[in-house]
Amino acid sequence: MSDVPPVEELTTRDCWALLGTVDLGRLAVVVKGLPDIFPVNFTADHGRVVLHTSSGTKLAAARSAPVAFEADGVSEDGQVWSVVIKGVIEPPRRVDELRDFEEVTVHPALGAHKAYQIRISPDIITGRRFTPVPASYWEGS
Amino acid sequence: MSDVPPVEELTTRDCWALLGTVDLGRLAVVVKGLPDIFPVNFTADHGRVVLHTSSGTKLAAARSAPVAFEADGVSEDGQVWSVVIKGVIEPPRRVDELRDFEEVTVHPALGAHKAYQIRISPDIITGRRFTPVPASYWEGS
Repeated sequence: MSDVPPVEELTTRDCWALLGTVDLGRLAVVVKGLPDIFPVNFTADHGRVVLHTSSGTKLAAARSAPVAFEADGVSEDGQVWSVVIKGVIEPPRRVDELRDFEEVTVHPALGAHKAYQIRISPDIITGRRFTPVPASYWEGS
Repeated sequence: MSDVPPVEELTTRDCWALLGTVDLGRLAVVVKGLPDIFPVNFTADHGRVVLHTSSGTKLAAARSAPVAFEADGVSEDGQVWSVVIKGVIEPPRRVDELRDFEEVTVHPALGAHKAYQIRISPDIITGRRFTPVPASYWEGS
């Protein structure tokens, strides 16, 4: 186990490029001092993460607190990657009141109407990428 | 858009069965009042989530606070599912000091040594499953 595969720290550009390849992420919020987490469909748009939500815990929490967002995936070359964003939520907008230039295509997997669009403006974006080791790597460890 | 596909609330049994089909989840913690999130490899073991970690933010935060954990996936029948656990971390154990009966096979994708095992004892486990709608569902909406 001495030959540990390297971990690549991703550039901001790479982070956004990879975020554009998936549509499912997870939003972590603090609600009354406790962590909560939600799977969310999202779109990466001009340096922001855009998602739609109905009016619920997610929105209530997002109105009042910073958030952390994570997405991950597997590249075509078999490397695994993850990106984490720390940021704040811009004021929620009603989807039916968005102007044309504000429209971003978000296609939630769940076919329920989502009344609000929220955008995360990143303060920090970090990402890592590495080649996963097979389970056999750990045998005898 | 009136014919919204139904969302199935999963039983605890179903949640654990589905957690057994994946090995990547996300751990959400609160650090100094702010949310943080980490992708983690895990194993579902007898009603607990087991993961290995080196000594870092994840461990420091987990020692002092409740956590939220999320995993998701796509079933063979094309349905998407997600499971969220709220719980607390049991005291971290050094992996090299675990007794045989405490050993759980965890195979991190990242080939770096993880000195500590942490287990999440769930207070609440919830899950949802539904058939995703295609992007065309949202056209004209």
